[in-house]
Amino acid sequence: MTLKNDRFLRALRRESVDCTPVWLMRQAGRYLPEYRATRAAAGSFLKMAQTPELACEVTLQPLRRFDLDAAILFSDILTVPDAMGLGLHFVEGEGPKFERPVRSVADIARLSVPDMESGLRYVMDAVRLIRRELAGSVPLIGFSGSPWTLACYMVEGGGSKEWGKVKALALNEPAAMHRLLDVVTDAVIAYLSAQHAAGAQALQVFDTWGGTLSPSMYREFSLPRLTRIARELKRDDAPLILFGKGNAPHLEALADCGAEGVGVDWTVTLEDAARRVGGKVALQGNLDPAMLYGSPDAVRAQARAVLDSYRDGNGGSREGHVFNLGHGMSPDMNPEHVAALVDEVHRHSAR
Amino acid sequence: MTLKNDRFLRALRRESVDCTPVWLMRQAGRYLPEYRATRAAAGSFLKMAQTPELACEVTLQPLRRFDLDAAILFSDILTVPDAMGLGLHFVEGEGPKFERPVRSVADIARLSVPDMESGLRYVMDAVRLIRRELAGSVPLIGFSGSPWTLACYMVEGGGSKEWGKVKALALNEPAAMHRLLDVVTDAVIAYLSAQHAAGAQALQVFDTWGGTLSPSMYREFSLPRLTRIARELKRDDAPLILFGKGNAPHLEALADCGAEGVGVDWTVTLEDAARRVGGKVALQGNLDPAMLYGSPDAVRAQARAVLDSYRDGNGGSREGHVFNLGHGMSPDMNPEHVAALVDEVHRHSAR
Repeated sequence: MTLKNDRFLRALRRESVDCTPVWLMRQAGRYLPEYRATRAAAGSFLKMAQTPELACEVTLQPLRRFDLDAAILFSDILTVPDAMGLGLHFVEGEGPKFERPVRSVADIARLSVPDMESGLRYVMDAVRLIRRELAGSVPLIGFSGSPWTLACYMVEGGGSKEWGKVKALALNEPAAMHRLLDVVTDAVIAYLSAQHAAGAQALQVFDTWGGTLSPSMYREFSLPRLTRIARELKRDDAPLILFGKGNAPHLEALADCGAEGVGVDWTVTLEDAARRVGGKVALQGNLDPAMLYGSPDAVRAQARAVLDSYRDGNGGSREGHVFNLGHGMSPDMNPEHVAALVDEVHRHSAR
Repeated sequence: MTLKNDRFLRALRRESVDCTPVWLMRQAGRYLPEYRATRAAAGSFLKMAQTPELACEVTLQPLRRFDLDAAILFSDILTVPDAMGLGLHFVEGEGPKFERPVRSVADIARLSVPDMESGLRYVMDAVRLIRRELAGSVPLIGFSGSPWTLACYMVEGGGSKEWGKVKALALNEPAAMHRLLDVVTDAVIAYLSAQHAAGAQALQVFDTWGGTLSPSMYREFSLPRLTRIARELKRDDAPLILFGKGNAPHLEALADCGAEGVGVDWTVTLEDAARRVGGKVALQGNLDPAMLYGSPDAVRAQARAVLDSYRDGNGGSREGHVFNLGHGMSPDMNPEHVAALVDEVHRHSAR
């Protein structure tokens, strides 16, 4: 089926487009009243993520309101460790927790790659259903957490400010840490390949916590796994985006991983980022999500500044830019400000 | 009085020293059983910070255990807004809160610089007492939060993940935001000048949340205030250190502020940082605090790597480096690992 709107895919291939495409991390989320209604009816976040009809519904909700150029599968980044047997659950106000975190070399030795069409079938069913419902309007992005980021949650048993347990494991038992990252990388490759086989037309890896590592630890524990994913993932011509909070120090290395796109947060200017990646990859980003708390006029001004910063670093051309936030949206954001943002991105970047 | 150990002050002036000096952010803290005992006896954190004898006691505790090259005043970064009438208190497990946060242009208009020897006399008394008790053994560092960082707490009313309220104020009411930052900067200059007059031999500004700003907002809302502090602070020959989490994108600009030292977190190598500041300032840092969760041998190896990284970026010389963590210590850290760290820094860097 031919896509009616292929701006997003064309931008990732650095091809010409009529205007800069835009989607927003966590665009399907609690800031939308219709999302809150679906979630209330489902009873829990996990129930919603694990029921293909509900995951499909919330995936499509933001596309009904805003002129977004891509849909992203509604799911959680911790589905893979859950399918590996760690027992994912959510504690109200505290975020995700694992009942059986990975704490020892013996725990790591017991891990294996889960079967995608049994333990994670609900994800693939959601992908198939969303593709059908999208009916070629915009492309669907599948995603996974990065191996380092998944390992963070698996070892800590939940979120953490300092990631002390996982860093201690990396320091004190590097061989075990590498074995853990190897099996998680195998699982991520199988997971993203299965999402593509089920219909995902682009794929994104969220290395949310790679930026908490020192440069030497990043190069040892996160970067090589991103490279392996980019090289081994079965994805035909579906582009891959490597997003990482705090990944700005590593842009040159990320541009050489074999992915089509690199997503960056707002602590670097796109002008600087575009110069540094030198046209090797498309760039995705990078408005500070908190800018959505500004007035609609302020949001529009900020959007123009991000668009122009990219152009200035990319030799005067807007090609190769996917507009996004530098991180996900928050529940208290105003949908009207999102509408202003999406409109301004298209308007200001129109060729 | 001549200092018995002036390594720290000499390193900040980029003079030769017998080995690299070391102190640790939050070295007086809950990881020490004697600190927990003092705190339990005091009844509350604020009581401890506001009672000069108790603040002096906990300031000195880590120096009795470890061969540290500087003491840092035990206090809280929010003493200044508290003295401005915001009503600081602590909620167990939630951190600092203000009873009367700054929410409107009218709230900002009412703010004024507090008198240092009335509302903040307990801080100056603590400085005087600590200086007497140190008896010239090592220098005493005074400190303040940066204007942007104080404004973050003042507007949000406490900590935040996104700092959405303060960023919205900066976007929607930039003139009011600048007025807030102006009065807070005046107060910080008066506060640090008073600490120096009371006996602090070096001063550090903690710009803990400057790194959450985009580069353009950092240059508008944080950096100019750091420059003003460096230029207007009455400090004779006492060196000033500008520490900022996530300040690595701005090192060149920070080196030109007029401070003697810049403190960096662990997301940049000191080799890169030293090349970029080009000998204009001393550098302080930058071990990831989580490395203290590693075994003592791993801690030692990490300390050597930080020391050698600085030397490699500083033309083969260790001059101009103050060893520290890239952020503060945590309550669950092991004092024996701190002992190994301090020992290794001195041993490995001995000229």
